[in-house]
Order: sequence, then structure tokens, then C-alpha cells
Amino acid sequence: MKSAILSVGTELLFGQVTNTNTVYLSEKLNLMGIDVLYHETVGDNPDRARMTIKRMLNEVDLIITTGGLGPTQDDLTKEIAAEAMDCELRLDVASLAAIKSYFIKTNRRMSGNNIKQAMLPQKKDGIILDNHGGTAPGCIFLKNGKMIICLPGPPREMKKMFEESVEPYLKSMSNEVIYYKMLRIFGIGEGQLESMLQGIITDQTDPTIATYAKEGEVSVRITSKRSTRAEAEAAVEEMCVKVRTIAGNAIYSEDDEDLKTVVAGKLIDSKISISCAESCTGGLFAATLIETDGISSVFERGLVTYSNNAKQEELGVGAETLETFGAVSEETAREMTAGLKRKTGSDVCISVTGIAGPGGGTRLKPVGLVYICADYKGRTVCREYRVRPVSRNWIRSYTVMLMLNMVNELISQPY
Amino acid sequence: MKSAILSVGTELLFGQVTNTNTVYLSEKLNLMGIDVLYHETVGDNPDRARMTIKRMLNEVDLIITTGGLGPTQDDLTKEIAAEAMDCELRLDVASLAAIKSYFIKTNRRMSGNNIKQAMLPQKKDGIILDNHGGTAPGCIFLKNGKMIICLPGPPREMKKMFEESVEPYLKSMSNEVIYYKMLRIFGIGEGQLESMLQGIITDQTDPTIATYAKEGEVSVRITSKRSTRAEAEAAVEEMCVKVRTIAGNAIYSEDDEDLKTVVAGKLIDSKISISCAESCTGGLFAATLIETDGISSVFERGLVTYSNNAKQEELGVGAETLETFGAVSEETAREMTAGLKRKTGSDVCISVTGIAGPGGGTRLKPVGLVYICADYKGRTVCREYRVRPVSRNWIRSYTVMLMLNMVNELISQPY
Repeated sequence: MKSAILSVGTELLFGQVTNTNTVYLSEKLNLMGIDVLYHETVGDNPDRARMTIKRMLNEVDLIITTGGLGPTQDDLTKEIAAEAMDCELRLDVASLAAIKSYFIKTNRRMSGNNIKQAMLPQKKDGIILDNHGGTAPGCIFLKNGKMIICLPGPPREMKKMFEESVEPYLKSMSNEVIYYKMLRIFGIGEGQLESMLQGIITDQTDPTIATYAKEGEVSVRITSKRSTRAEAEAAVEEMCVKVRTIAGNAIYSEDDEDLKTVVAGKLIDSKISISCAESCTGGLFAATLIETDGISSVFERGLVTYSNNAKQEELGVGAETLETFGAVSEETAREMTAGLKRKTGSDVCISVTGIAGPGGGTRLKPVGLVYICADYKGRTVCREYRVRPVSRNWIRSYTVMLMLNMVNELISQPY
Repeated sequence: MKSAILSVGTELLFGQVTNTNTVYLSEKLNLMGIDVLYHETVGDNPDRARMTIKRMLNEVDLIITTGGLGPTQDDLTKEIAAEAMDCELRLDVASLAAIKSYFIKTNRRMSGNNIKQAMLPQKKDGIILDNHGGTAPGCIFLKNGKMIICLPGPPREMKKMFEESVEPYLKSMSNEVIYYKMLRIFGIGEGQLESMLQGIITDQTDPTIATYAKEGEVSVRITSKRSTRAEAEAAVEEMCVKVRTIAGNAIYSEDDEDLKTVVAGKLIDSKISISCAESCTGGLFAATLIETDGISSVFERGLVTYSNNAKQEELGVGAETLETFGAVSEETAREMTAGLKRKTGSDVCISVTGIAGPGGGTRLKPVGLVYICADYKGRTVCREYRVRPVSRNWIRSYTVMLMLNMVNELISQPY
């Protein structure tokens, strides 16, 4: 099946908003085995939208549109799609009632124009898609082996509708089942991982193995397309076993969860309390961990000891240590952790000191030099890292990943 | 002038990367008064790219392409553009030398394929654009009143080339000068601001006034297009005066700087030291402020007193206060700030306590209830906020904005 994605909205052409709908839909379609040939964006201009849809229909089986389902005169995506597919729109009473009740629920007034949103394809021409996060219903037009799916523009509404209605519908059309697993890996570069996996990637047709690098980590997607789900799952699992023997401990999630969520989840589930003392990351480790709801049951305390003064007063780092070895040194990191442990008694105490730049680096202590020291119930690890000095914020974010990874390592080891 | 943007790259159609080039270019072109009619993305597929360029040339004066300038056989954007414009590519000796020296500088080996990157339009057909951040030169093809500008795909390289070469070139082609100012406003909603500005927006043709809402704040762009820069600047300034009388203190920047940068800049410039104590934001205020380089000269200490225990031990919040009023109360916020002041003596001491949710809310203390207390050299402000409970992370981010805004207010007032 070949597809194209058409985004409608003048605000996109003005560069006021980034088009995140398209990347979301592309990934979803590809995961279902549907090829995406084009992305296109037009403004609220009926002629251009009409021309584009006509042209796309000559080349693809499926067009997904986002935007232009609102109540104003400018919102014409559905009308143009109906025309291109030679389908009629009629007032759908159930959808109108749903729109009315949405206005009542959110305490707003419905305008006469909102009736336009309930003009939808009839059963013989397509399917109506309910909107559980806004007023505009979506719809699917079906004719002569072609399909146009019209979705709302706001990403939250669009995603909800796609997941609830479109994804199951598209899956039901295929005789084959696609199953995949996304393994997330930290600490191995994409190039290195590819060479490690070379032996099992070569000549591999099903399952397929693909690696993706993003923000300092790598994901491996193992995908199988078979006639039953059980077969696809078994094929993926068999390949997973091989990848596990190769990448081993570097795999921190097999469910496409990110590192902060994995670590926070383990701390909460195992009731492991944690405190941190941060210098160069400046609170970002705490802020990242605290993104997870429920962390308050285990997160005890964070100290942003940015100045030398704060390191001495809050953590008892020795003036002599700072003088002799400097604030960015293994010795300081170890004393920070020891001080934090004395103060809080948390199960995990982790501290970090480093040079985030762009200023402050020297030949011996360059920008990107980072020391992380963590203690888990008396077992202490302290490591030096040379983080690639991409930018101040990259160094800080990557350092937080290194810290999360160290915590994950410590709490996952048998004690 | 009418334009279209063509992105080339299969990774975009796979949904592996978000297309940020297009939003960047769209904003830039619109600010120069160039209309953008289309965005389109195709894969590394020469036929589709060829068809798309041909079609676009019928409708627009300018096509900007990104991607497909690399050394591999798949990278064909420049070749296809040359063909569509009926221009010849020739080996450019200077560009080849630049590519060679880039490889030497970055300690890598140049492959034979890289020679392809130095195949560029001749002087009679266009302009070569140097790449100061990578290997692939860009180029501009000019013929019969049409223009195709080919830029590299990696956003950092693309932006550098656009700013250094393309922007000045496009500006030099126009007889008119566009000048604009972006005012940034916090604390007034977009709808409210629009009604406040109604009187001066209506019938306004030059300067134009446009409002943009993003992430809890609003920007107002005032744009004038005149025959000289002096005239355009004067027209914008005149309108600025009017907007200032209406929006007043809510304008925190007239140079399109964000709130964290404005506040960090003022603290650093005026040598005002700062410490913070955070509960619900969990280190995010500190982490946000510390994004600005040079903040170490004024940022003294941050405390993430997430547990009641931490609030008592670190800040001396009374057990009775926590018992009687609760951790999320004005009384606790005031004691947190007082304790922080005693401990650090920083010029600005700010503390926050609130309910980030999604759990933990009650009827009297709902999710989104936040207390912020700041002291600047003995002058204390404490305020209650009801932040819209969009999500845990939205509440935390917006609370950081409220904190930054409070600091800005305090340090900007005459003492």
C-alpha cells in the first residue's frame, strides 16, 4: 500500500508551528508496512488543496490529511476530499449531538458554524471517526480502491483519533500481522552497534533489524511480518535472543521506554530512596527524574551545589580538596557523595561535577570533563567521562543520561 | 515573490526525524516578505523529485531544497535542479579544495565520491554557496526569472549557509526593506491581548501587528516594509510606543529573547546573587536558569526539598507549619524562602511549593495550586497561582515561567 500525507494550514507555511503530525503519522504508517511517498503542506487555499489531492490520487492508494476540519469558512479539507472522491456529505445527527454535548461539557457556546463539522460521508461512501478530544469528527472516504482519511489538525486530537480508530482499521485491512520490538540501548554508538550486529543483519529479510540513533542513544527495531501474530512474535523473540547476547547489559528497555522512565519506575517499584548533589547539571538530573509521577515516594532531596561555598556548607567537601584537586575532580565528586549520604541516608546518593562550558575549560580539564560518583547502600562507583563538547546544554543533558545509566546499573546488579 | 520548499530525504518519510528545516525556512522567508505556497517532502527518489521540481517551477518563482547534496549515488538534488533549470554542472576547483581541507581539518579520509560535491553551476547560471560547517557546498540556480536554491540537509549546516549567504542575497534583490520587532509578553493570554490591541490592529496596513501564542506566553510582531531601513524602523518604533502603553510591564523583551535568558542576563549584569528552593518543580527552575553560560558568577545554591523531611532539615520549615497548613501553602512557601535566606544570604531567594499532579489534588487544594515566594534584599512577595492542569510537565514548566517572571519583576523595580 502506498500513501501520502497532506497537511493543511496556513500557520504551517508561516513557520509558526513545527509539523509534528507528519512525523508521527509517517512512523506509524511505516510500522504498519505502508510506504509513505510524499509529505505535502498547503495553506487554507482550496484550489491548491484540490490540485494536490487529485494529483496524489493518481499515485497512491491512501491519502491522510490533517487540519482544515474546523468550523470556519476556510476549513475545507473534508469538502475537497469528498469532491475528489465523488462522495456526498450529509448531516450526521449523531455527530451533531456529540459536538453539542462537547460544548456543554466544556462550558462553551456552540456557534451555527459548528454544524458544518457534522457534515460527513454516508455509510456507503465511508466511515465517521469520533473525536474524543475536540469538536471536529474525522472521516474515511472509500471509493474505487482509493482511500482518503481526514484527521483534525491539533496533534493531541489527531493522535487520539489515529490510535483509537484509524490504526485498528488499517490493521484490519491487511492479511498479514506486523509485530515489532524496540530495544533501547545506552553506551554504544550507532556505528559500533551496527558492526556488532553485522553478522545477524546481513541477508536478514524477516525479521528485519534497523538501528536508529537519537540524542546520545541508539534504538534497535526488530520487525516481523507474518500471517499470524504468534508467528511474528516468535520470530521477533528469536532475534531478540541473538541481539541480547551481543548488546547485553547495554539494553535498558525492551518496551521502547526511555531511560528516565525506566530508572524512576525501578526506584518506585523497589522503594529505593534517592538523593542527588549536582554541580554542572544544575538541577537537571533531579528535574528529569521528577518528571515521573509518583517519584515523591522515593525522591528525598536534591542539592544544586553550584558554588564552592555550597559544596563545603551543604556537603562538607573539604576546602583543601577543592584547593588541591579542584571542584571538577574525582576527589570532590567522592566527597560530595559521602556528604550527601551522611546528610540524607538515602539508598542511592549520586553526585556530579564537571565543566559544561563553553568557558572554563583548560588543556588538562577540558570542557566536557565530568565526574559522577554514586553510592548504593555502601557500594560506591566513581567514574570520569569525557563528554563530547557539542554545546553547554548537550553536555548537561548527556551527563544526566550518564547519571541515570549509572543508577540503573547499580540498582540492577544483584547485591 | 512566491516560493516553495522541497525537502529531500527518505529518513523524513520514515518518520525518523522531524522536519525542522522547513519551519525555519518558512519563518525566515515570511519575514522577508516572500510567500511560501507549499512544503513538500520526497524520498531519495529521482523521478519524484524531478516531477515535483518541474511542477513547482510552474507555480512559484523560488524553490528552496534541503538535503540530497551528499557524496552518495542517492544524493541527486543538485543534479535534478540543474536539469530542470537547463544549467550545466562543472567541477569547481575552489570548492574541491575547500572540501579537501575540511577533511584534513576534521582528520578524516576523503573518498572519491566527494568530488561529486564539487560539481556546481557556472557563473553564468548561478552562485556557489560555501559550507562552513560541513562538506557539501550549496548553490543557487538562476534562469528566466526563476530561482532554485539548494541547501544541505543537516539543520546546523543549512541554517549557517542560509544566514551567511542566502538571506543577504535575497534581501539584496528587493527594493524594499522589511524591519520588524518581536515583543515578548508574559502574563496576558493571546485572546486578551488581541482585544487590548484591537484599537491599533484594525485597519493597520503598515506596520502590521501579529500576535503568536506559544508555551504559555505571547509574542507580538510589529513589521514594516518601506523603501529605506530608517523609515521602516521609525514606523515600527512609533507603533512600539503604542503597544508599550497598552501592554506595559508585561513586555519582558523587545529583542525576541526568552524569559530565562532575560532574567539570567539581568542577574549576571547586575551581579545579583540567587538561590532557590524547589518542591513541585523539582530542580527545573535551577536547571533552566543554569542553561545560560556565565550564570556561575551569581547562582549560589539550589535545594530540591521534595520531601517534608528535606523542607524541615534544609530550610527549617516548622513541623507545625507543615502539620497545620500543609506542604503546599503560603505559610510553607514563606518559611522556605526565609530559611533559604538565612542559609545562603543570596540577594534573591525564591521558593516554590505546589501540586504538579496528576495525583495528589483535593477539592480545596487541586492539581495546579502553586505558591511562589521570593525575597529580594528584604522585600518579599508571596503569591498563590492556579496553574491550568494540562499535564504534570506543563504545570512544572509553567511554574518555572511564573518564578522567572517574579524574579524579573522584583529585580526590575526601582528599589
